[in-house]
Amino acid sequence: MSDLPKVPMTRADYPHFLIVPTRWMDNDIYGHVNNVVYYSYFDTVINEYLLRSGGLDIHNPEAVIGVCAESGCRFKAAFTFPEPVEAGLRVAHLGRRSVRYEIGLFKRGRKEAAAEGHFVHVFVPRGDMTSAVAVPDAIRTALEAIQVAG
Amino acid sequence: MSDLPKVPMTRADYPHFLIVPTRWMDNDIYGHVNNVVYYSYFDTVINEYLLRSGGLDIHNPEAVIGVCAESGCRFKAAFTFPEPVEAGLRVAHLGRRSVRYEIGLFKRGRKEAAAEGHFVHVFVPRGDMTSAVAVPDAIRTALEAIQVAG
Amino acid sequence: MSDLPKVPMTRADYPHFLIVPTRWMDNDIYGHVNNVVYYSYFDTVINEYLLRSGGLDIHNPEAVIGVCAESGCRFKAAFTFPEPVEAGLRVAHLGRRSVRYEIGLFKRGRKEAAAEGHFVHVFVPRGDMTSAVAVPDAIRTALEAIQVAG
Amino acid sequence: MSDLPKVPMTRADYPHFLIVPTRWMDNDIYGHVNNVVYYSYFDTVINEYLLRSGGLDIHNPEAVIGVCAESGCRFKAAFTFPEPVEAGLRVAHLGRRSVRYEIGLFKRGRKEAAAEGHFVHVFVPRGDMTSAVAVPDAIRTALEAIQVAG
Repeated sequence: MSDLPKVPMTRADYPHFLIVPTRWMDNDIYGHVNNVVYYSYFDTVINEYLLRSGGLDIHNPEAVIGVCAESGCRFKAAFTFPEPVEAGLRVAHLGRRSVRYEIGLFKRGRKEAAAEGHFVHVFVPRGDMTSAVAVPDAIRTALEAIQVAG
Repeated sequence: MSDLPKVPMTRADYPHFLIVPTRWMDNDIYGHVNNVVYYSYFDTVINEYLLRSGGLDIHNPEAVIGVCAESGCRFKAAFTFPEPVEAGLRVAHLGRRSVRYEIGLFKRGRKEAAAEGHFVHVFVPRGDMTSAVAVPDAIRTALEAIQVAG
Repeated sequence: MSDLPKVPMTRADYPHFLIVPTRWMDNDIYGHVNNVVYYSYFDTVINEYLLRSGGLDIHNPEAVIGVCAESGCRFKAAFTFPEPVEAGLRVAHLGRRSVRYEIGLFKRGRKEAAAEGHFVHVFVPRGDMTSAVAVPDAIRTALEAIQVAG
Repeated sequence: MSDLPKVPMTRADYPHFLIVPTRWMDNDIYGHVNNVVYYSYFDTVINEYLLRSGGLDIHNPEAVIGVCAESGCRFKAAFTFPEPVEAGLRVAHLGRRSVRYEIGLFKRGRKEAAAEGHFVHVFVPRGDMTSAVAVPDAIRTALEAIQVAG
């Protein structure tokens, strides 16, 4: 699976963190958090950052928003319920109309990530999601603040 | 809707609390947390309490577990993302083989519950979920600790 | 639990049906569909009916929509994955600004419902969800078509 | 995003299909199915196939099961509610202890996939999920039946 980008292994590589506690129904039949749910942690740390730091406006039908163009995850260790997921976020590439995030999910007290993923947002007007537009200024500033050297 | 039990309106009525942060995908198309998701908050505050305080063993195939026989919720105010849900829990009735919980979900800084619900667990052996058994001792002790006068 | 309304036990009591197949992640750690997910089946059969038969417009920010004021469910038998859930829907009470649905979830080949629930929609302008308004005409006509005698 | 494998664009490239209808709560605040939910469609088409065709036993605590080691998705067109998702599945690589699936999600009547993804299962004993074992024979036979030339 060498075709996915190499992402870092430790907390120090992520400039922003959010704690996402697991929920009862995150567990699947095998007693661990289902793989699908990891992507909801990605979604949550990213959008929480855009809302709090970038002024993303999700209630205005005229706004420019980010839509997911691509995502991926490598799963290395399991989470269960109850457990806090320490979700690290960084910007790996910031383009004119899109951004590539990298996310590391850590178990408390563990040095290496339990899961590593990436997520690409393309920015579009909410009223016409088919044509990409420039990343809004306030969001760009927030993204630059957590950008890491390529 | 007078057929549901009246449940209390303030935090003082709930002896146990858990904070459940909302997630991005909890929001539905109308921009508020979907009604279904409230029940996952119920599930989470209840099972977290049983696991931490009552020794509920969810990984042992021989264990006695609680299965949901009934639930209900009245919705009074909306949650959105991001927002911490303050979930209050109490035991309203403790039977030999079942328990009725009442749950209040509060918005930060608001006195009255945004949602009030109930949830009934019947205890069964994991290997035969059709026949109810006595509430295990450790769980009973934990439930009594948050029981309120009828 | 005599405080919830008695609802009928057989398919003949429901004028409208939708098949909702279970999904892998509906299963919880105990190998059955999690109680929370039943409410997503309620949500789905109700809104599919409103969209297809009542002209509910969920993309227009000016529209009148239904928001959930109350719901409840009694769980009698388990669903698992993979399995088709046969979701029956009827209108038990149609008011000027709200509607009470009753839902029965059936397992294939079983006569009695595996779960019985209710769900109350209050109609509001999407732009001001705090003040109830009259049920829109097209929706009212659709609701009357599946209303049962009180 | 050239680092993800190229996957085919038309239904003819997928030997197995399952219809997964969207649900009301799949929609996010922007009125389209949330990106996270696409992965639950992957999960569902894969495990339904393993259960029906490969004899996967998810209720036996002694069984050998597949756990997700990696997944990814490229999003090209939106789904909404209600809508049937036509999920195509193929095996791109079958190793001794793991399998790489490719999935295409199609909108009715559209020739090209709305989303293309991959998903890697590693097989482990349920009682010790850390050590990979050989793909069980019945599952291997089922996987070979939908394998495509590399």
